[in-house]
Amino acid sequence: MSRVYNFSAGPAVLPESVLKEAAAEMLDYRGTGMSVMEMSHRSKAYQAIIDEAEKDLRDLMNIPDNYKVLFLQGGASLEFYRIPLNFMRHKKAGYIITGQWAKKASKEAKFVGDMVVLASSEDKTFSYIPDCSDLPITDDMDYVYICQNNTIYGTKFPELPNTKGKDLIADQSSMFLSEPVDVTKYGMIYAGVQKNVGPAGVVIAIIREDLLPTEEESKNIPTMLNYKTHADNGSMFNTPNCYGIYICGKVFKWIKSMGGLEAMKKHNEEKAAILYNFLDNSKLFLGTVEKNSRSLMNVPFIVNPAVVTDPEKKAALEAEFIAQAKKAGLENIKGHRSVGGMRASIYNAMPIEGVKALVAFMEKFEKENL
Amino acid sequence: MSRVYNFSAGPAVLPESVLKEAAAEMLDYRGTGMSVMEMSHRSKAYQAIIDEAEKDLRDLMNIPDNYKVLFLQGGASLEFYRIPLNFMRHKKAGYIITGQWAKKASKEAKFVGDMVVLASSEDKTFSYIPDCSDLPITDDMDYVYICQNNTIYGTKFPELPNTKGKDLIADQSSMFLSEPVDVTKYGMIYAGVQKNVGPAGVVIAIIREDLLPTEEESKNIPTMLNYKTHADNGSMFNTPNCYGIYICGKVFKWIKSMGGLEAMKKHNEEKAAILYNFLDNSKLFLGTVEKNSRSLMNVPFIVNPAVVTDPEKKAALEAEFIAQAKKAGLENIKGHRSVGGMRASIYNAMPIEGVKALVAFMEKFEKENL
Repeated sequence: MSRVYNFSAGPAVLPESVLKEAAAEMLDYRGTGMSVMEMSHRSKAYQAIIDEAEKDLRDLMNIPDNYKVLFLQGGASLEFYRIPLNFMRHKKAGYIITGQWAKKASKEAKFVGDMVVLASSEDKTFSYIPDCSDLPITDDMDYVYICQNNTIYGTKFPELPNTKGKDLIADQSSMFLSEPVDVTKYGMIYAGVQKNVGPAGVVIAIIREDLLPTEEESKNIPTMLNYKTHADNGSMFNTPNCYGIYICGKVFKWIKSMGGLEAMKKHNEEKAAILYNFLDNSKLFLGTVEKNSRSLMNVPFIVNPAVVTDPEKKAALEAEFIAQAKKAGLENIKGHRSVGGMRASIYNAMPIEGVKALVAFMEKFEKENL
Repeated sequence: MSRVYNFSAGPAVLPESVLKEAAAEMLDYRGTGMSVMEMSHRSKAYQAIIDEAEKDLRDLMNIPDNYKVLFLQGGASLEFYRIPLNFMRHKKAGYIITGQWAKKASKEAKFVGDMVVLASSEDKTFSYIPDCSDLPITDDMDYVYICQNNTIYGTKFPELPNTKGKDLIADQSSMFLSEPVDVTKYGMIYAGVQKNVGPAGVVIAIIREDLLPTEEESKNIPTMLNYKTHADNGSMFNTPNCYGIYICGKVFKWIKSMGGLEAMKKHNEEKAAILYNFLDNSKLFLGTVEKNSRSLMNVPFIVNPAVVTDPEKKAALEAEFIAQAKKAGLENIKGHRSVGGMRASIYNAMPIEGVKALVAFMEKFEKENL
């Protein structure tokens, strides 16, 4: 067995120790005589797994008691519709468009009410986060929506927008648990776990209780689309993605063992600095994101078109780089199909050795091809 | 490591060989250097996994080309709403209520249009399947809905209802792949896989193409709730439950290796006969389902109240039975929390030895307690 360095944007690298534990427990979870996959979600053994996962997450993120933690299914893309359906009480909300995911979310909001674009960075291919200090937020808006880290474009909000008192709802999929966040600054945080926390098929939502639909409001919301359903039933109104939650729980414990979110942030900043420093000093490679908007998690870069001016040659060189990287055990370096170029996703579980190996490979490639 | 006989109604027993393979491949799937959990869903390796899963399922069920196969998230409970939203074109549909799941499905239909109860067996605690040969189906109904096997009550439709030409939509969650079915008799078959096929968190839907929403109709259906979205994108509009689908694929191969659905039916009939024959001849135990409505998969039974007439003694004896069974390695024999008593779910992966062990234990318990 030989493991590669996997720079996939998601599903993505998981801690090796977590995978080893999962493999060891596959046929018999701690003397129960069965796999977690085979376990009734109503059993004591499984209840303990989901309870412990929630507790560890609350510890890690310091989640106040007046926030519910939900383990949901459907993918973040289902939340794009579930959010306005639950929270657009006055049928109006503001969206900040910093990439494809925020854009897709804004599209679903239109099924429910009036979606107002407060700011957008689409003019420059989403390569920056717009100034959000004084947005045209009106009193009748129910919330302000952001995608806080943009996986495809490699941007992250350098600071939270000034929402002028409105509740902030943030898709944190590709930055979840990568650094501490102040939960009290949000009405809702949610994340598809397949980028930084677990296997695809689980969404974690952290929702301030007073935002949940009332009994009266619930009459008009289909059961499974109502956050209250899941909040009232400890995420077990129906059978959840039991195995996915179990793996998430193991990752929470791994993060704790690494020192928690402050330590994780330091680890991630160190890794990102190695890569960004290289890019800032490279002649052949160019980071595509404005410096103050850079993500700690997703680092897109291209062959510098000012150096390799022929677009065909540039594309060929990028393809060659990706192919050679793959041969060197550096996997999934290709940029998102909508933007091209390269992208290295360096989530929590990517060891610093992986980033060093990538930079060493880039240095070598630059020498050979410049 | 010691494995128990797990009679859970779902999540439920999986073939041991499948779990062993999954454990062996956990850190390195066939030389890719990564777990299937860590794999980009856009990678060639993962595309091959989902393509092969679909192909094997099509082979097993003999699914015609004009039916789409979808791997969805959210649980069957989300389909309860998605079905009327996609298919209730004339805002009217007929439901046959044979248990809690059909009832829950019918409730969600009311969010979309006029839900008509065509028949119900609620009068006798859902212990039988009503006569469905001449139902009050009207021309303006879009479809007829059934839950074909009722996990909680242990009933199965002895034959499909006469839908008078209307499309039949069937929840087959707890009987999926337990026996051959003629797909062409259905507009849609769907199943949460956690009962007979895989880990919780995947729903498989088989839908006749002409039933899918048109472009025009799609304008009014939120993206993720539209079956056309998933059909048009090979179940990868967004990241699917990759790992769950991978396990389902292994189970499909296991069923093939066992001889396919005809062989599976024979295997299941043999197991069920052992248990039903015992119940039919037992003095202490009583099966709760009318004979011609019996499920092959879920077998509920009680201590016979005609023999143990004191309700408290009966309840105590049932509790004792469940506790002793657990000690004997016969797990999850307790009936659903809504009906009490006992229930043995004997899905595909339950070996015949498990059923024999259960019957031997019941014989012993009967001798000791009668």
